[in-house]
Order: sequence, then C-alpha cells, then structure tokens
Amino acid sequence: MTEQVLASWKEGPARKAILDFVHEATTPGGAFVEPADRIATFDNDGTLWVEQPMPPQFDFVFRAWEEEVKADPSLAERQPYKALVERDQQFFEGLATQEPQAVASLLEAFARSWAGTTPEEFDARVREWTTTVRDLRFGVPYTKLVYRPMLELLALLRANGFRVFVCSGGGRDFMRVFSEETWGIPKENVIGSAAAYTYTDGRIVRSRALLGGLDLGPGKPEHIFAHTGRLPAFAGGNADVDIEMLRSAAFALLVRHDDDQREYAYSKGAEASLATAEQLGWTVVSMKNDWTTLF
Amino acid sequence: MTEQVLASWKEGPARKAILDFVHEATTPGGAFVEPADRIATFDNDGTLWVEQPMPPQFDFVFRAWEEEVKADPSLAERQPYKALVERDQQFFEGLATQEPQAVASLLEAFARSWAGTTPEEFDARVREWTTTVRDLRFGVPYTKLVYRPMLELLALLRANGFRVFVCSGGGRDFMRVFSEETWGIPKENVIGSAAAYTYTDGRIVRSRALLGGLDLGPGKPEHIFAHTGRLPAFAGGNADVDIEMLRSAAFALLVRHDDDQREYAYSKGAEASLATAEQLGWTVVSMKNDWTTLF
Repeated sequence: MTEQVLASWKEGPARKAILDFVHEATTPGGAFVEPADRIATFDNDGTLWVEQPMPPQFDFVFRAWEEEVKADPSLAERQPYKALVERDQQFFEGLATQEPQAVASLLEAFARSWAGTTPEEFDARVREWTTTVRDLRFGVPYTKLVYRPMLELLALLRANGFRVFVCSGGGRDFMRVFSEETWGIPKENVIGSAAAYTYTDGRIVRSRALLGGLDLGPGKPEHIFAHTGRLPAFAGGNADVDIEMLRSAAFALLVRHDDDQREYAYSKGAEASLATAEQLGWTVVSMKNDWTTLF
Repeated sequence: MTEQVLASWKEGPARKAILDFVHEATTPGGAFVEPADRIATFDNDGTLWVEQPMPPQFDFVFRAWEEEVKADPSLAERQPYKALVERDQQFFEGLATQEPQAVASLLEAFARSWAGTTPEEFDARVREWTTTVRDLRFGVPYTKLVYRPMLELLALLRANGFRVFVCSGGGRDFMRVFSEETWGIPKENVIGSAAAYTYTDGRIVRSRALLGGLDLGPGKPEHIFAHTGRLPAFAGGNADVDIEMLRSAAFALLVRHDDDQREYAYSKGAEASLATAEQLGWTVVSMKNDWTTLF
C-alpha cells in the first residue's frame, strides 16, 4: 500500500509537503481538517492535462467553428472566426488575459454554436472528439494526456476522506462528458464556466446566457463557494488565473511546466502565480524533477 | 437490517412502490439505474420538514426585517416590510404564486439584509435561530420538525448507492448551515435559491444579485442539471412548484399533507401536483396513513 501512494512522484520537497499535509489533516492536533471540510479543488488545463500548444477544448471548439464558417463564409469577416481563419495568435492571447472584446466575441460564438441544443447533442459531439481526435505531438486522444502523478494525488486525497472537485475556466459541460472515466470524478464535482439551461417541454435546453461569471481568477473561489459552501482545504493549479483559488485554500500546490523533453517548458501566464508561490510558501511541483512518469 | 428499512412507514402502496423502485434500480435488468446516474433530489419545505403556518425560513427572515424596521421605521411604508408590519396575508400569498412585484420586493429586502456580509456572519445568525427559536405549535426548534420517515428514505437511498441532494426554493446558504447535522447531507449537495458572492480581498462576500434564477418550478430541474450534470432518478416533493422536478425524474414521490391531528391537512399550493400525480401515476404518500411516526 505505502508503495503505491504517489508512486510516480520522486522523493523530494513536493512529495513530502503533500504527504505531511495529508498526515496532519487527518491526525488530531493543530492542522487537523474536519472531515466535512475536506474539500480539494484542481484546475484542469495545465494542472491535470497538457494545455500546450493550446487548451484541448479550443481544439474542440475550433473544429466546430471551422464547420460553421464553411457553412456560412460570411462569418469569416467577424471575430472570433476571423482570428481562427487567419490564425491570429494575438487575438487568442488576448483571451488568456481576458481582453473584454475578445471574451465577448468568444461567448457570443459559443452561444451561436450551442444555444438551443440539449445536453445529449452536446455530449455526443464531445464524445466523438475525445475518441477520434489526437494531439499532434503525442499522437493520442487528449484524454490520454492527463498527468498520472496528479491522478495518484487525487486518489491519495480521496483515500483520506477528501471530496475532490475540478474547478476550471474551461467548460463545465465539456469536462463532465469525460470526468468520470478519465478522472474518477463524478459530474457533480466538476465546476467550470457554463451556459445557463432552461427546462422547457420536459427538456433541458442550452440558452445563450452564461450562468454566473467565468470560472477564472476570483471566479474560482466564487464558483467553489457557490457549489460546495466552503473554500478548499487543498487546491492545485498552474497559472495566474488560479491565484485566487490557491490563496483561498489551506494548502496550495502549483505545477511548474519546466520539462521541455517530456512536455513543454513555459512560464507565460504563470509569472504572477510563481512569484506568489515563492512569497506565500506554496508547494511548487517541478514536472521535470518531481515526476518519474508524466502519463 | 430489514426491520430498520423504512421503519416508520406502514405496509402499503407507497412503501411498496419505494422498495420496488430501489430493488429494480439496483438489480440488473430493465429498470436498472447505473450507479453514476443514481441521483435523488428532495424538496425541503413540506417534503422534509413542516411548512405550516409558513416555511420556517420566513420566520428567520421576518425576525431580521422586524429588527430592521425598529432601527429604521420609515421601512414600514414599503414592501415587504409594510406587509409584515400589517400582517398582510394576501401579500405573502402572492409570493407563493410568484407575483412579480412581491417577489422583487422580497429579493430587494434580502439584498438589503445580507449584501456585504460574509458566510460566517450569515451562518452565525442562522445558527442562533435554529438553536433558540421554537415552533409555536410543537414547542421545539424547527430543525426538530423534520419527518423521520423521510430521513429513513434518505438513508435507504444512500445505502443503495444514491447521492442524495436537497433542491429547495428556499435559501441554499440558509439550509447549508444545518444540512449536515440535520439531514446528513453535505453542504455541496444542497441546491437552492442563492445570492451571488464575490471574492474580494481574500474574502467571500455576498452581493446584491441572485445567482441564476429562483429554484422553483422549472428552476428546479435547471438547478439540478447545473449542479449535477444529470436529471434525478428519484425525486420527492409536495407542491406545485415541484412538478417540473418530479416530471424530470424516473421515480416521483409526492407527500400529501392530510394529517390534521399530527401535522396539518391542506392541499393549497398542491392542487396541480396532486392532479399530475394521479395522471402520471406518481407515488403519493399519505402522511396520515403511510407514516407511523412523524418526527
């Protein structure tokens, strides 16, 4: 049993910090965490799976929009379709920094693609994508690009009475399609950005509106509190948009992408979170040094 | 063990229908329910606890508003404070039918009472109320007015792999204060009407806005889908505002208040749900005939 815990984690400060936290959280005394309060939350893109060259959901979305542009070429004259057709990197970088016009055009395009559809229709499209589309570099479906060390961490937390949630800026309904088979996380423990649905004529149908705000930055603890009634005891992230969630947790883990051989090495979009980690003493995981296996 | 299952339920069609459903849901064959799909949702007011002479949360809210009127007597000139001071039954009946102006004034007053507060402040007020205020007729705190047969039903469902949720038009954060000790339901399984919260300066603070719509009528399956990613396999309710939730479930249970000796006998606000139960063959529970003990 002991051998299996965090089996893909090398001995080192990150592994030790996690094991110490879990031990203290479950041992009567100063840092004990009441079972009811054992909520753990994890970002998805870059924390549970590869987010380069872009978060996999964009691949899914872009394929849908490319089909829409084929069916209606006039779309290519406006955003975000224009940026997609022109491979306009700057536009998509604007999204990462939540440039308001870029975000607005994106939400409008999401609504255009999916408003009026049922969950069954959306799920079928996502399922087709997860089973047929492969990542170009690794040659496998995106759901195979989940970090094995992180799955071991989820298992360790679960074994110690934590309820594990995913809290991602990505689409709640997108993730829920594969959360159970890929992460062992039930749909109801997946928190993310989401459209509102209406119940009409006995069916749940997607509307054009967003339900609550985007699940990014301060939106993360807001969504977590709304969903669970608590802030997390344990949180894991990898980027600046995770800072508020990590600050709201008793124990914060930041994944550092520093392995250009087995994955990617980059700190773009994570500069502030890396600085905050140093300042506040968060546990930083070096993918290169702390993990024996990635997938 | 067999003796303890639904111990406060008399032999009869309601008890039998529940046991048959649970047996079939967990036995390979036609009506088997995949473990992942075993979601059960229950209304609260009138389904899990007494809702006469008014839903207990109104008692909590009215006490807060009475204090506010004392501090600022000019409030007594506008709704909903005016109706409260004047004991205006008609105004509060307008709420039950969701009369738009009455609902708007109520939401405005909620915001006035609680916007800017933290969950800790709100929880402390609710906890003071649950421990000090007693129901006039029964002479006990409201949390003692939970129906024992329903707690047995929650236990039966849980024992058969169902994840049990409460889905109430009442306040999500109000119910979460006592959900764990009273129902054995973790906060994250409580769905209800709720304010949005903002995360500012490291704190979760209540805003003036509502998050999503009211959790009533079609709002119930909408909230359930948003929260769990599914519609319920089992649902329990007692009123017209539960119809959509009950219709969305594979098995629907409707509690009928017909016991004026031990509780109350009324069908106001439940006329349409009782008619729908007959039409669709829902299981109707007679409090008078099906339950040996109420509390």
